[in-house]
Amino acid sequence: MNDPVVLGVDFGTLSGRAVVVRVSDGQELATAVHDYTHGVLDDTLPNGTPLPPDWALQVPGDYIDVLRKAVPEAIDRAGVTPADVIGIGTDFTACTMIPTTADGTPLCELPEFAANPHAYVKLWKHHAAQPQADRINALAEARAEKWLPRYGGLISSEWEFAKGLQVLEEAPEVYAAMAHWVEAADWIVWQLTGRYVRNACTAGYKGLRQDGAYPSADFLRECNPDFGTFVVDKLNQPIGQLGDRAGDLSALAAYWTGLTAGIAVAVGNVDAHVTAPAARAVEPGRMVAIMGTSTCHVMNGADLRDVPGMCGVVDGGIVPGLWGYEAGQSGVGDIFAWFVDHQVPPSYHERARRRGVSVHELLSELAAAQRIGAHGLVALDWHSGNRSVLVDHELSGLVLGQTLATRAEDVYRALLEATAFGTRMIIDAFTDAGVPVKELVVAGGLVRNPLLLRIYADVTNLPLRTIGSAQGPALGAAIHAALAAGAYPDIRAAAEAMGAADGEVHHPVETNVDAYERLFAEYALLHDHFGRGANDVMRRLRALRREAVGG
Amino acid sequence: MNDPVVLGVDFGTLSGRAVVVRVSDGQELATAVHDYTHGVLDDTLPNGTPLPPDWALQVPGDYIDVLRKAVPEAIDRAGVTPADVIGIGTDFTACTMIPTTADGTPLCELPEFAANPHAYVKLWKHHAAQPQADRINALAEARAEKWLPRYGGLISSEWEFAKGLQVLEEAPEVYAAMAHWVEAADWIVWQLTGRYVRNACTAGYKGLRQDGAYPSADFLRECNPDFGTFVVDKLNQPIGQLGDRAGDLSALAAYWTGLTAGIAVAVGNVDAHVTAPAARAVEPGRMVAIMGTSTCHVMNGADLRDVPGMCGVVDGGIVPGLWGYEAGQSGVGDIFAWFVDHQVPPSYHERARRRGVSVHELLSELAAAQRIGAHGLVALDWHSGNRSVLVDHELSGLVLGQTLATRAEDVYRALLEATAFGTRMIIDAFTDAGVPVKELVVAGGLVRNPLLLRIYADVTNLPLRTIGSAQGPALGAAIHAALAAGAYPDIRAAAEAMGAADGEVHHPVETNVDAYERLFAEYALLHDHFGRGANDVMRRLRALRREAVGG
Repeated sequence: MNDPVVLGVDFGTLSGRAVVVRVSDGQELATAVHDYTHGVLDDTLPNGTPLPPDWALQVPGDYIDVLRKAVPEAIDRAGVTPADVIGIGTDFTACTMIPTTADGTPLCELPEFAANPHAYVKLWKHHAAQPQADRINALAEARAEKWLPRYGGLISSEWEFAKGLQVLEEAPEVYAAMAHWVEAADWIVWQLTGRYVRNACTAGYKGLRQDGAYPSADFLRECNPDFGTFVVDKLNQPIGQLGDRAGDLSALAAYWTGLTAGIAVAVGNVDAHVTAPAARAVEPGRMVAIMGTSTCHVMNGADLRDVPGMCGVVDGGIVPGLWGYEAGQSGVGDIFAWFVDHQVPPSYHERARRRGVSVHELLSELAAAQRIGAHGLVALDWHSGNRSVLVDHELSGLVLGQTLATRAEDVYRALLEATAFGTRMIIDAFTDAGVPVKELVVAGGLVRNPLLLRIYADVTNLPLRTIGSAQGPALGAAIHAALAAGAYPDIRAAAEAMGAADGEVHHPVETNVDAYERLFAEYALLHDHFGRGANDVMRRLRALRREAVGG
Repeated sequence: MNDPVVLGVDFGTLSGRAVVVRVSDGQELATAVHDYTHGVLDDTLPNGTPLPPDWALQVPGDYIDVLRKAVPEAIDRAGVTPADVIGIGTDFTACTMIPTTADGTPLCELPEFAANPHAYVKLWKHHAAQPQADRINALAEARAEKWLPRYGGLISSEWEFAKGLQVLEEAPEVYAAMAHWVEAADWIVWQLTGRYVRNACTAGYKGLRQDGAYPSADFLRECNPDFGTFVVDKLNQPIGQLGDRAGDLSALAAYWTGLTAGIAVAVGNVDAHVTAPAARAVEPGRMVAIMGTSTCHVMNGADLRDVPGMCGVVDGGIVPGLWGYEAGQSGVGDIFAWFVDHQVPPSYHERARRRGVSVHELLSELAAAQRIGAHGLVALDWHSGNRSVLVDHELSGLVLGQTLATRAEDVYRALLEATAFGTRMIIDAFTDAGVPVKELVVAGGLVRNPLLLRIYADVTNLPLRTIGSAQGPALGAAIHAALAAGAYPDIRAAAEAMGAADGEVHHPVETNVDAYERLFAEYALLHDHFGRGANDVMRRLRALRREAVGG
C-alpha cells in the first residue's frame, strides 16, 4: 500500500471536479473534471417547457455522473489504487435545493413531474423567489425576529425558505409531494452514504438555523397559512458538523466511483466555506474570496457581530469554535463571460484568435494599458442581482459614461472594477461593524487574471494573496475527507498539514489607491441611489419585463 | 434648351451629395455622393498629431472635392447640360467653423499651421469647448444678457463663441492669425462666388445675432479680456437672407464644377433648416426632424416664445416672416452605428451576412418582435452629449437594467427608444412653452428603419409623416437655388411647387402609447437626475478621463 490519499469532489455551477490528495502533506496528485450534460437550465426544461425570466434549474443526474466519471478518472490519473483511498469529501454550490421523495429520489425523476419546473433543482442563482424573500424580510422585520440580524437584516431569495415558499405558492402539488427539501450539498452525501445528514453550514447560512432552532411555526404561518409546518415536514433532520463522518461509502456509490465500500464520507459542505482551510485561513481577519462565476467571501471571527448585508454568521459555520461570517457577490465571472459573449465585436475575437489568446486575455491586456479613469466609465455589477450588502435580486446592471469613443476594453475594465467596488462595499461593511478584514486571500478561476488582482488590491487597499492551489474548493473537501477518516485530530491540524501554500502577493499601489477612491465614491453614490430606494427603477423595469414577457 | 434645373449640394458629416432638380416641379433627376477623404478627425491629424478626447475636426479641401466630383457626376447622370443649370444652392452641417486668412484660405492649409489642431475645421460635434461654454453661460445668466432666453437659457459648446473662445485660450497664435472665423456654410459659398456673406440662419442660431446685434464687447471682455473684439475682428460681415442670391458662380468654381460662370449662388444655409421647405413645412406647428448622425428639429412659429433648452429662435431663421425654432439631439444615428461597430458579437454579424441584410436590419427585426418593456432596459442617449434640452456636452450615455439574459437586440432597441424619449423631451418643452407641435415630419437616413418610426410615433403620440424624398436637405438647397435664381417670388411658392410629397404616415397605437408612458417616466427620472445636477457623475468622469489621458 502507498501513502494514503483522499478524494475531494467539488460540485460547481457547470461541472464537477475530483481531486486526489495525499493525506500526509496535501499534495494534489491528479484531477479530473466532468461537465454537467444539462448545464444550467434557464431557458427551457430538457423537454422544451419554457422557463420564466430569472429561473435557473439543474438536473440531479448530472451530479451522479461526476461520481461515475470524474472520480475514477482522477484515481486512474493519480496512479493510486482504490485501496489507497481512505475517505471522500464533497463541496457544493449553495443554496441549491432539491425536492425529493422520502428515499431521496428527486421529484423531477418521477414521470408525473418531469414537465414541472418546480420539480427540478433550484440552482443557487435561481432568482425568481424575490417576491417571497421580500415578504419574509418585511414580516421578520415587523416581528423583530431575533434571527434576522444574523443575516445582516435581510435574507436572500436564493435561500431555502424563499425558494421553498415559492414552490408552495406556485406549485402546491410539488410541495405536497416532496418529503424533503434538500440542499444539494447534503443530497450528494446522501447518495454516497445512503444517509441523509444536514450539514451545519448550509443549515445555518441558508436554512436560518441559529442557536439550534429554525424560524418558528408561528412566523411561517404568518408568511403563508400552509407554510407553518415547513420546518417539521420538509427540513428537519439530524445535523452533522463540518469534518465529521456522515457515514460510510455505500455499495452503490462504490460501484459508481470504483472506490471501496465502507470508507469515510465527510459531512456535506459549501464550496466557499470549504476553501478557508484549503487557504489555511482558519484564524480571524483573513478573508477568503472565492472568485468564479460568483464570489463568496468567508472569514472567521472570534466574536458575534451584526454586519448589515452580510449573508450570515453561523457558530462553527466554517470551522468549529469560531463564528463563521459569509458574504457574497451573486455575479462576477459570469458578468465578464456574458460581456465577452454578447458585447464584444468580431474584430476582437479575430485578433484574439490570431494571437492564440482568449478574448478575456486580449481585453485584459488592452485594459491594463489604461490609466485609472481613462475610460470615463463607472458600472454597477448587478447583472445577476446583488447578494451583499443589498440582498436584492431585482437589481440589475448599469454602465454609465459611454461616449462614441468607448471601446470594448473600456467597458470590460469598468465591469472588472465594478466587481472590485462590490467587494470593497462588503469589506467596508465588515470593518464598520467591528469585524476587521486584514488580508484578502483569493481563490477560484478568476485569480488567473493579473489585471483583476491588481484592481482588487488597489480598490480594497489590502494585500492580496492568491491561494497556492488551482483547486481550492476540491482541496478543502479533501481536507475534510481526511478529517472524517480520522487522519487528523481537528481542522486546524489538517489545514496546517494539507492546506495550500500562499501564492503570489499583490500589494496595493498608493497612487492607484487614491485614484480608485474617487471612482469608488461614484460607485457608492450610484449603489445607494439605485440600491437603497431613492430610485427603484430597476425593480419597476423587472416588473414591466415580467408583464411584457408573460402578457 | 431643356427645362431649367438647379443644383442642391448637401454637405454632411461624412460626405457631400449633389442633386439635380427640375425647377418647374422639384423632380429629382440625379444624385451623386462624394465621401470626404479625411472623414472626421477625432483621433489624430492627417500628420499623426494626436487629438485629445471630445475633439472632432475636418479638412476643408474635402468640401472642395465634393464640388469637383459629385457636382459634375450628378449633372452627367441627369442627362442635362451645364446650360440648363440656372442656380446652385448649398447646405451644411452647423455649427462647423473654419479659421481663415483675409482671403478665405483655411489656416490649416498654411505650412506653419498644418500641425496645429486649432487651425483645422471644428466640426459641429467637436465638444471640447464645454469649459468655455460653461463660462459664457454662467456669465450671461449673471448679467441677465437679453439674448440668452432666445437660446433656451443655455448656449452650446458647439457654437461660434464657445469654439472661438477655445481657440483664443488654447492657441492664441492661431487666434491672432485668423482674419475670419467662418461658418463652413458661408465658406463654401465664399468659394463658389468669391464673396463672403454671412447667412442669417447660422448668424442667428450659432452666432448669437439677435435683433441685428451680437453680444456686446463688454460682455465678451468679461469672458476674457482678449475676447472683447471677437465680433468686430473675426465675425462681422454683411448678412444675407435665406434664399437670396449671395453672388454669381466664379470662374474658378465654374472650372471645378463644370457649370457656367455667372449663374446664381444662394446664400448659405443649414442642412436641417433647408429641409423645412423641402418637406413643405413652412407653416407653424409642423415640426421637421432630420434624423441622421444627429437629429435636428426645426419648426416655424407665429410668435416669439422662450422655450427652455431649445437651440434657438431666430427671426426668419427658416423662412422669412416667421420665427424659426430649432432644437436638436447631438447623437442619434451615430449612437446606433457605434453600438453596431463596438457592442455586437460575431454571431449577429455572421447571421446578417448569411441573410444578406445589414446588422442594423437584423437587430431591428429581432427587436421589433419584442413587446414594449420586455428587454427590461432604459438608456440615456447622451453618448455624444445632450444638445436639447440640457445643452451639456459633458453628459454621457447610460444603459440600465442589464442582466445575464440581455442580448444585443435588447440594448439596440433600448437605444432607439432612448433617442425617441429625447425627441419627446424636446416636443414637451415646446408644447409647455406655448409652441404646440401638431405633427412630426421626419427626414434623413434613419427614416428607412420602420421600427424606429413605429417607436417614435408611439413615444411622441403624434402622427409621423416621412418626407417623400430621400434627399431632403439637398432638395431644400435646390429650392433655395431656384429662389436665388429668381424662378419663384418667395419660399412659400417655391416649396409648394418643388417640395417633396408626403411619404407614408405612421399613427401612434394607443396601447403602445400607454406602455411607453411608463418607460418614458423612467427615462425622465434619470434624465433629470443625471442631467440637472442631482448627480454630476458624468461631468466628474469626464474630468477624471481628461486627467488620466492627459496626465
